[in-house]
Amino acid sequence: MARLAGVSRATVSYVLNNTSTMRISEPTRRRVRAAAEELGYVPHAAARSLRAGHSRMVLMASPTVPLSPLYESFLGDLQAALGRMEYTVVQYGGPGCTGDAAVRAWAELRPVAVLAQSGHGLDPQGVAVLKRSGARAVLTLGPERVDGAHALLTDHSLVGQCAAAHLLARGRTRIGAVVPAERGLDVFSRPMVEGMRRAAEGTGAEVAELPLAHTEEAAARLAGRWRDLGLDAVFTYNDEYAMLLMRALQDEGVRVPAETAVMGADDLLLSRLLRPRLSTVRIELPSGQALAELVDRLVRAPGARTEAHDLLAATAVRREST
Amino acid sequence: MARLAGVSRATVSYVLNNTSTMRISEPTRRRVRAAAEELGYVPHAAARSLRAGHSRMVLMASPTVPLSPLYESFLGDLQAALGRMEYTVVQYGGPGCTGDAAVRAWAELRPVAVLAQSGHGLDPQGVAVLKRSGARAVLTLGPERVDGAHALLTDHSLVGQCAAAHLLARGRTRIGAVVPAERGLDVFSRPMVEGMRRAAEGTGAEVAELPLAHTEEAAARLAGRWRDLGLDAVFTYNDEYAMLLMRALQDEGVRVPAETAVMGADDLLLSRLLRPRLSTVRIELPSGQALAELVDRLVRAPGARTEAHDLLAATAVRREST
Repeated sequence: MARLAGVSRATVSYVLNNTSTMRISEPTRRRVRAAAEELGYVPHAAARSLRAGHSRMVLMASPTVPLSPLYESFLGDLQAALGRMEYTVVQYGGPGCTGDAAVRAWAELRPVAVLAQSGHGLDPQGVAVLKRSGARAVLTLGPERVDGAHALLTDHSLVGQCAAAHLLARGRTRIGAVVPAERGLDVFSRPMVEGMRRAAEGTGAEVAELPLAHTEEAAARLAGRWRDLGLDAVFTYNDEYAMLLMRALQDEGVRVPAETAVMGADDLLLSRLLRPRLSTVRIELPSGQALAELVDRLVRAPGARTEAHDLLAATAVRREST
Repeated sequence: MARLAGVSRATVSYVLNNTSTMRISEPTRRRVRAAAEELGYVPHAAARSLRAGHSRMVLMASPTVPLSPLYESFLGDLQAALGRMEYTVVQYGGPGCTGDAAVRAWAELRPVAVLAQSGHGLDPQGVAVLKRSGARAVLTLGPERVDGAHALLTDHSLVGQCAAAHLLARGRTRIGAVVPAERGLDVFSRPMVEGMRRAAEGTGAEVAELPLAHTEEAAARLAGRWRDLGLDAVFTYNDEYAMLLMRALQDEGVRVPAETAVMGADDLLLSRLLRPRLSTVRIELPSGQALAELVDRLVRAPGARTEAHDLLAATAVRREST
């Protein structure tokens, strides 16, 4: 490349690395860039981050559990917004990539920021390893705080509280709480049930936890013993579980909402397609853009103090099923 | 670290890089590894790949369009299987990350293998850039082949053909083809319609393309003019569009399947929850494990010849809606 541009190898390196301490004329810079273009030169992100000491890479740890469509689209927006701010967004991992092994794998890539989720089991030692490897901001997304990391708090107890308050206001007093039987989702469902219990406190109403696998067979079994449970309402983990259970209840002849009110969460399109139309909890999350700006600010000014932000707000949407 | 282990810096480097050309005693290796552990040393993947000339990183380009739940779970399985084979799977990109810019961004990470999808607009020049930057295998996932890349072919015309054949066998002759109005999905829906036309060829049956946005309003509009269209069957892009349209048709008083047969694709759980139960096209894809083994083989033995594999098989599942 130096030969093609007619300059020294050092000059090529200065130009391609945008070294500002060296004075190199604009025509020379142009000549080097043209030669680089002609030769199809691709800078090595790794080498560049070695030199710069940090990268523009934001590592978003891949979820360890299937996310609801709501979170999928939220994380997609965040990724797009970070991309527009010229961060390189990399998703890393998958089921089983947790704990120390995950932290070491992430640290090897030398990201400038890391966004982990509850399921990854990040602990304060892990945060320290990431910071030592050059991460200027470590953030967690989930209901819990981790020492040393910024917290994007999603307090799902608000969702349960909102649902139970709605059902209580509709005069229901024996409320089922359908939680996924699938592993790893209790980090969301446990606080949800806690929120329901909080709303029911002192009202005389009861909350009964009902694990349900996301299969027709499991739903049919639960519906088959429904009348023995003596419930007059049920709130499900999300709209998809509500669809599953409501179908099974209807097949069993249970009238919705006359005998049992059914309420979902997430306000997916499908909640409006069901009959009766499904009441649901609408969950509001900040825009991807707003969150990308937060990440950028934390990267630019990595202070000693960690920040915590509540992301989640919940409102009841009443339709026909409650 | 050298001081802690009581060895030279060169020895530390040899041990941590697993340099096999140097003879270093096992006790010394152990001492260095213990010191590394104590100091919380994390190797730099970038530096390691610079030395080794290639990495264990498989770059899966993030989809540019929302994928159906079927593909989501397929790609998740592939990722998990590659992880078990000790590849580092990194997802990169998002909407807007396409063409030359995408290729250069991927190449900067020096992956050993790249899996791109149709929407990324990879061309033969892009494949060459990736190979020059050290990728030993470049694969595309989608209906088209790209020179120089291995092809994991998903021929969606088979899905359309299978659906149309089923509807024709049920005596239907005026068949609607619901395709997403959303941008970027025509790479899947175009061949689907072609497959339907192929199945209808010479039978006297007609296929009419019907773009539909994934909203209640759009579905209500289409259902409102349904009887003017004079169709006796409709095949939709996937089960989710089928659910949307079938609800709108039922709200409009169109009897399913008496007046119009409705068929979806992907065989999602929801297809069994609808009433009438939805007939659908079950799409079979290879296991993530099988595909991970293919990627590994191509990385180990990067030959001059590119391979093409047909991934997709389709079978009709008849329920109550056809």
